[in-house]
Amino acid sequence: MTKPDTPTLDQVAGPADLRHMSDRDLGRVATELRSEVVAAVSQTGGHLGSSLGVVELTVAIHAVFDTPRDKLIWDVGHQCYPHKILTGRRDRMHTLRQGGGLSGFTKRSESEFDPFGAAHSSTSISAALGFTVGRDMGQPTGDAIAVIGDGSISAGMAYEAMNNAGSEGRRLFVILNDNEMSIAPPVGAMSSYLSGLSDLTRKGPFGGLMAMAEGMEQLAPKPVREGARRAREMVTGLESKGTFFEELGFDYIGPIDGHDMGQLLSVLRAAKTRATGPVLIHCCTVKGKGYAPAEGSADKYHGVAKFDVDTGVQAKAKANAPSYTGVFGDALTEAASRDPSIVAVTAAMPSGTGVDRMAKRFPARVFDVGIAEQHGVTFAAGMAASGLKPFCAIYSTFLQRGYDQVVHDVALQGLPVRFAIDRAGLVGADGATHAGAFDIGYLGALPGMVVMAAADEAELVHMVETAAAHDSGPIAFRYPRGNGTGVTLPERGEVLEIGKGRMIREGTGDVALLSLGTHLSECEAAATMLEAEGISATIADARFAKPLDLDLIGQLALTHTALFTVEQGAQGGFGAMVLQAMAGEGMLDHGCRVRTLCLPDRFIDQAALAEMYRDAGVDAEGIVQTVLAALQQDRKVVTLHS
Amino acid sequence: MTKPDTPTLDQVAGPADLRHMSDRDLGRVATELRSEVVAAVSQTGGHLGSSLGVVELTVAIHAVFDTPRDKLIWDVGHQCYPHKILTGRRDRMHTLRQGGGLSGFTKRSESEFDPFGAAHSSTSISAALGFTVGRDMGQPTGDAIAVIGDGSISAGMAYEAMNNAGSEGRRLFVILNDNEMSIAPPVGAMSSYLSGLSDLTRKGPFGGLMAMAEGMEQLAPKPVREGARRAREMVTGLESKGTFFEELGFDYIGPIDGHDMGQLLSVLRAAKTRATGPVLIHCCTVKGKGYAPAEGSADKYHGVAKFDVDTGVQAKAKANAPSYTGVFGDALTEAASRDPSIVAVTAAMPSGTGVDRMAKRFPARVFDVGIAEQHGVTFAAGMAASGLKPFCAIYSTFLQRGYDQVVHDVALQGLPVRFAIDRAGLVGADGATHAGAFDIGYLGALPGMVVMAAADEAELVHMVETAAAHDSGPIAFRYPRGNGTGVTLPERGEVLEIGKGRMIREGTGDVALLSLGTHLSECEAAATMLEAEGISATIADARFAKPLDLDLIGQLALTHTALFTVEQGAQGGFGAMVLQAMAGEGMLDHGCRVRTLCLPDRFIDQAALAEMYRDAGVDAEGIVQTVLAALQQDRKVVTLHS
Repeated sequence: MTKPDTPTLDQVAGPADLRHMSDRDLGRVATELRSEVVAAVSQTGGHLGSSLGVVELTVAIHAVFDTPRDKLIWDVGHQCYPHKILTGRRDRMHTLRQGGGLSGFTKRSESEFDPFGAAHSSTSISAALGFTVGRDMGQPTGDAIAVIGDGSISAGMAYEAMNNAGSEGRRLFVILNDNEMSIAPPVGAMSSYLSGLSDLTRKGPFGGLMAMAEGMEQLAPKPVREGARRAREMVTGLESKGTFFEELGFDYIGPIDGHDMGQLLSVLRAAKTRATGPVLIHCCTVKGKGYAPAEGSADKYHGVAKFDVDTGVQAKAKANAPSYTGVFGDALTEAASRDPSIVAVTAAMPSGTGVDRMAKRFPARVFDVGIAEQHGVTFAAGMAASGLKPFCAIYSTFLQRGYDQVVHDVALQGLPVRFAIDRAGLVGADGATHAGAFDIGYLGALPGMVVMAAADEAELVHMVETAAAHDSGPIAFRYPRGNGTGVTLPERGEVLEIGKGRMIREGTGDVALLSLGTHLSECEAAATMLEAEGISATIADARFAKPLDLDLIGQLALTHTALFTVEQGAQGGFGAMVLQAMAGEGMLDHGCRVRTLCLPDRFIDQAALAEMYRDAGVDAEGIVQTVLAALQQDRKVVTLHS
Repeated sequence: MTKPDTPTLDQVAGPADLRHMSDRDLGRVATELRSEVVAAVSQTGGHLGSSLGVVELTVAIHAVFDTPRDKLIWDVGHQCYPHKILTGRRDRMHTLRQGGGLSGFTKRSESEFDPFGAAHSSTSISAALGFTVGRDMGQPTGDAIAVIGDGSISAGMAYEAMNNAGSEGRRLFVILNDNEMSIAPPVGAMSSYLSGLSDLTRKGPFGGLMAMAEGMEQLAPKPVREGARRAREMVTGLESKGTFFEELGFDYIGPIDGHDMGQLLSVLRAAKTRATGPVLIHCCTVKGKGYAPAEGSADKYHGVAKFDVDTGVQAKAKANAPSYTGVFGDALTEAASRDPSIVAVTAAMPSGTGVDRMAKRFPARVFDVGIAEQHGVTFAAGMAASGLKPFCAIYSTFLQRGYDQVVHDVALQGLPVRFAIDRAGLVGADGATHAGAFDIGYLGALPGMVVMAAADEAELVHMVETAAAHDSGPIAFRYPRGNGTGVTLPERGEVLEIGKGRMIREGTGDVALLSLGTHLSECEAAATMLEAEGISATIADARFAKPLDLDLIGQLALTHTALFTVEQGAQGGFGAMVLQAMAGEGMLDHGCRVRTLCLPDRFIDQAALAEMYRDAGVDAEGIVQTVLAALQQDRKVVTLHS
């Protein structure tokens, strides 16, 4: 049937086409799919390594299960490129992670084959269990299959889901994609445990087959399983104990070789046919599989820029200024070199957060707790209570995972944990799921919390120093993804006065721009544009969202026709807090034209960062427009009796 | 040495005194301590059952370990009454959970013997690991001992902490207080697993001794441990596999009998002497132990009112109106009876949230996921994605545990999960740790989220109906702890128009009170008081914090001298959102005296609820004072050029 010269992949308009193919053709599809993924990502950049690791798995799942009626849920979702190609999005792969293009993650609005979007880790088992209940209660859905990595499954949330799924006992498939990597090599006891299990496969050629045979047995009644287990002991010499997953109520199959299409198909078919309860299929894969430059690289090409397919050389743009992440890492290391009580916590992101720089010099003082933000925050609180000075470096969007711990364990006890909040504001290609939109509000509401935002990388250095010196309670400082402005960096930061902003440029009384964060530069550009319109703008950098500099705010309000707050965060943040404080001080009583420029009340899809802020109306142009509109606005609504 | 007629407990001024006592005298102390706890709680009410379960454990830990240099961390902290009695707070036990008195939980500011406060569950291992690192880095701290219940240890956060502690390998003690109960019987696969382990103890009198002997062996090198394990197999006939905890890198001792003082002391002494890494001591206890009415009750007197010691009869006040929790439970059950796609999720609080009422009629549609808010929220999101209508019933303070899941899995995907948020606002005796202070802000910042607050129990019924009918996105409704106002309840709720408030009382233009939530009654009382001062007050019930009723707000602002928002939540909530919206609409441009009455920017200690709100300045009196101050306020700050 197959025309020999036509790529087999061309016969696949959708997953249904895989279901009539021979196993051999499915193998061909996988091979071609791998090349296609490499070619596509070489043009766009993206998450390459994890996608290459699941090529065979993707083909096998779609061939065996009845997607989209069966719900395939990719944990995190960054490994979904082969899935996107197979599910009707092949011709749009060149738009990946670009404005108006395909998301870099799974996304419900993009395809019926994406039943549950993702981007943060460890959500898939919970969602799959939800679909399973839906199916059992008569909703038009088939089986649910969660595919989750060994890094993601080590998070508390995944454990909670397995604990619940194991006790619910519903038919549910969890495929553990064990590549012994998350973004960084995974840490923690669970990781060692999985390595022990997967050594069974890696030890020799028989391992895989034996394990598959055992996989079959696992689906049989208990006495037979016991026999299989004992057989494995005899063959491998390893003590065969109930696995962690079995203790949680799952049937455990594996480990199997996730690049052996025949093995995958057999195991998935058997599991699909026979499973009555929750099943965990432990599948060993290689991140970056089949593309030599990826396999040979330390991070397995987790996230790449555009690259040359032949050489693997990435076209990373040369930066004119250091990244905020790097500046933070260096400033932290410098402070740590002076103060031996400084320690750092990261949740599986040592290089993403820059604490790897400190770890190089002070490895014993940097703690990677794994994907475990809840624990990480309270662990930091415990260290602070013991007298240490912990810096807890977590992206804004991921700190949401530890919010209760920030409230209950840190703020309520007034413990001096320093929160270094990277990826504040919009983040570009990673889109809405990774936006650091809410931290100003969710931290600013907490009594005793100090919240700073850096206007540039020199300010960031000052804020690291300020945080290190602030021992009377918790303090947070936020800064964006990307590179700084190129300002000269101080050798050592200054300790800023808590709650004091700074005047940047004094105008002649028309409008005042009160900026929090790196859009200070947009304010400066806006001021230049406004000058061309004959409008003078004063600019101040608030530095602190909490406590607010009420003297500065009062002075700006008193001496200008209108006051504009500018922030890279959602409503309910800096601008709202400024207004609430002004109301409390009576500063609004007799008229004060205030506008708060913040992210609009909608989620903003991925695009180039500047485009996203343009879309949001929070850039120089947006500031100018808001100023002009405010100045021209009719006295349209309120005339009070007073 | 002991005078026969003086209580042995009287010789204990602090834990140091326990360390010279004979084991027999320590047993006496425990017996007397148990009576003292019963007597104390009978006068104040409080968490009785869990405290009675750890009496021997408390004495043994303080006798063996060097507190306060060694850091004893009680998970949740509600089992700490015996600990408080032994650590210098005996004479203040009559003030427990009362205004100005002792907290019902551990609290750093209360005693050096409380190194890390608690009230939310599952934080103790993380904090203990933090202290352990502090010790290893030269801070003046000894060993860290976390005592955690079987309910608490099943949460993802505890798993994250064990995963990290197991891999860190530092000397650390975790005592699993396994009473097969949290507030409700614990659920999930982990719970069954622990039952299996603890059956070893419960099976017969030899169990405890044998396990203790094994406990000793566990601290010996591995080959000896293997021998001990095999011996256990031979005696019990149970397969002896590596425990869950051993797989995570802990040495496992147990199970032991937590009411056998001799056994406890031996095991703790041996562990203290020999441990080099993390050790888990599995200790079986009985909630309510030693007080017959508690042991005989279904909830083991988890939380009790004042009671008669002889009979155990509690002096629960008769309510004039049903509780909000009960009204929610009934309205949900009623809605569920009409719509088979309605399901409910609780995180280990079926009776606390009222979903037990629905579970009685529709047991298969109510899901208790255990202490697992992260999973619970995303599980609900999965059910919503499958077409079901989930009500996720979680207290305001505990929903903080699932914040990222609300953002990333629910709001970002626009999934119609209904959040029923009990314990909104201040909560009385449980104090600051349980206050539902932040939800208006942290939910209101999320695009697409609808946020309602019920003004009374009839409104709550309408909001349940509104939430059931709202299928286009997520919706939340908040309501307080305690009883309603006694209004007539509708047989069936009405579907409210999204984003529309209601006028309650029209005044003559002096001041407008815009209330969100149950302090509508305080606004009414304030209006009466203001009338006596010759000031007319209009009152409106906002119903919605998001979307805001801008027509209503604009009208109130336009027709009154001053506008006051009133809410039971922190700053950055309703009032801030009203101001931000008004600024955006230009409603503040020409003067609008607005004040936002919300919780002050500090944590508020436990007291009677009315006292707490008085302290916060958010009651009728506080409203009146704020109104009078605002009306008299000089034009003190701002006169704009415009």
